[in-house]
Amino acid sequence: MPDAPRPRSGAALVVLAGGVGGAKLAHGLQAHLDDRLTVVVNTGDDLERHGLLVCPDHDTVMYTLAGIDNREWGWGIAGETFAASEMLARYGEPTWFRLGDRDLATHIVRTRRWRDGERMTPIALDLQSALGVRARILPMTDAPVRTQVLTDEGWLGFQTYFVGRHQEPEVLEVRFEGIGSATATPEVLAAFETADAIVVAPSNPFVSVAPILAVPGIRAAIDAARGRGVPVAAISGIVGGRAIKGPADRMIASLAGEAPTAVAVARRYVGWVDLFVLDAVDAELEAAVRDLGFATLVTDTMMVDDATRARLAGAVLDAVGPTTGTTSMV
Amino acid sequence: MPDAPRPRSGAALVVLAGGVGGAKLAHGLQAHLDDRLTVVVNTGDDLERHGLLVCPDHDTVMYTLAGIDNREWGWGIAGETFAASEMLARYGEPTWFRLGDRDLATHIVRTRRWRDGERMTPIALDLQSALGVRARILPMTDAPVRTQVLTDEGWLGFQTYFVGRHQEPEVLEVRFEGIGSATATPEVLAAFETADAIVVAPSNPFVSVAPILAVPGIRAAIDAARGRGVPVAAISGIVGGRAIKGPADRMIASLAGEAPTAVAVARRYVGWVDLFVLDAVDAELEAAVRDLGFATLVTDTMMVDDATRARLAGAVLDAVGPTTGTTSMV
Repeated sequence: MPDAPRPRSGAALVVLAGGVGGAKLAHGLQAHLDDRLTVVVNTGDDLERHGLLVCPDHDTVMYTLAGIDNREWGWGIAGETFAASEMLARYGEPTWFRLGDRDLATHIVRTRRWRDGERMTPIALDLQSALGVRARILPMTDAPVRTQVLTDEGWLGFQTYFVGRHQEPEVLEVRFEGIGSATATPEVLAAFETADAIVVAPSNPFVSVAPILAVPGIRAAIDAARGRGVPVAAISGIVGGRAIKGPADRMIASLAGEAPTAVAVARRYVGWVDLFVLDAVDAELEAAVRDLGFATLVTDTMMVDDATRARLAGAVLDAVGPTTGTTSMV
Repeated sequence: MPDAPRPRSGAALVVLAGGVGGAKLAHGLQAHLDDRLTVVVNTGDDLERHGLLVCPDHDTVMYTLAGIDNREWGWGIAGETFAASEMLARYGEPTWFRLGDRDLATHIVRTRRWRDGERMTPIALDLQSALGVRARILPMTDAPVRTQVLTDEGWLGFQTYFVGRHQEPEVLEVRFEGIGSATATPEVLAAFETADAIVVAPSNPFVSVAPILAVPGIRAAIDAARGRGVPVAAISGIVGGRAIKGPADRMIASLAGEAPTAVAVARRYVGWVDLFVLDAVDAELEAAVRDLGFATLVTDTMMVDDATRARLAGAVLDAVGPTTGTTSMV
């Protein structure tokens, strides 16, 4: 069971995150900020499997912040087993989206409460609390939003493309089904209102960050925070011309017609991000990023273990510190 | 995958069954009858757990007929694991009704199709088919029926009493919630119409057999079969004054005010059963059972392994044979 809520002290930070990259950065930030961290997580890659509601980005962040993520695989829960999945296959269920036995419990509890009419946000917070997560992970919206990608095979659900088709088809267009009916939740709006800094994780700009920005109310909330002097930093998920994980590099080529560089990522964030963080291997791109109007931080952004996660998080906190009083944050 | 349907040959048999006792007898009968066996199974002890629809009697019979039942425990699936259940407990879910990882897959598939509006019967038949079951196991009705027992703690759902309270409270009354809106399915009615014999498994008369009989249309279908000369046999689940498994002996005392004997079981079946099967240890009760108007068969009814299951089944088939042409059945 989690400890009782502690009095808030020091500065609060909101991070916008997708799956693995967002989870690692959030984990590093949580090491510094504990319960002063709020993660607003993409829900565009949520999907239903076997009648159960699965929220891959939320759960990746949750398992990571709970310290039970499977680092060997890069997804799922440490020590996971697949007995139920094997039986589902025996019943003829398509199991290309592989769900472990422990992971299934998350989806079962979530689905029961969701079908009973509860909002996604309190359900998510209770799951996190049960696993002892100190930060808060907020779904970007309670409404169902489903990211779809146009390929030469037609429109595919995001996970069909990402897991089922191994990200092989070229992505020609992205849309967020349901986004028009979505609204920012009171919890997300309150997090932005009380934020002392906002950080965009090194997640995919097109399918992790863009859906969060597209939720009606969120961009306005970020703009309002910036109007109060709250800095917004973003970390490039493209390092040395390649995505650290996933298809972001190929999407930059096919969707933006650009070479996949940190500059191309920065271009997606013009107008709402102040500070752009590049990896040291991309130091020669710093000037081009500055030309786009960003302040810059060049540092080692590879998060390969707890220490490097915390180090990058600390460097970002230091960089947004002059405005927000980092000393009390870290 | 199951084989293609084979032409029916020889006589067909319908068995009325609850859980473990019914499953064992059905398994013995399947050894003789293969796909000429239909099991009409109690659904009164179905329940929802974690938002999933669980059908304990159906699944016990299904796993047993599929040969994957866990004989060491007397319930569930051989080699079963409980990783999901442990995670459900971590989320604060009550897990007194323990669901294994493989078993969960059954409930997940069933629940998905059921929420999509499908009838329980085709869902059940597909599950059985996927596991290679040769006989057909038909839910007694597609409608939700929930057996409840009145105790000094008030009315309890059947599984709350049976599993949650370890059958400890005295049962003062039994009711089948929803039975008034239930109807016999076309599949169940067709099975009785084409049956050459009907057998009542050594299941609990009050909470396994009675709910089946209470489904509007089933008693009439049995009466119609008897009118055509179809024999109905029943096997006592009380042997030597004690229930082989479960609380039937205590229910006979508390509900019928009788000593728990095979005679008391037989009394429950007066008027719709022709042949009553007693265990050899109860041979001295044969005359009393005959006095109630039954033909009798005295034989070893304990089913401790495949051989004794098949032996009892064969003895029952022989006993109903003169009317139904057993020779072609076995």
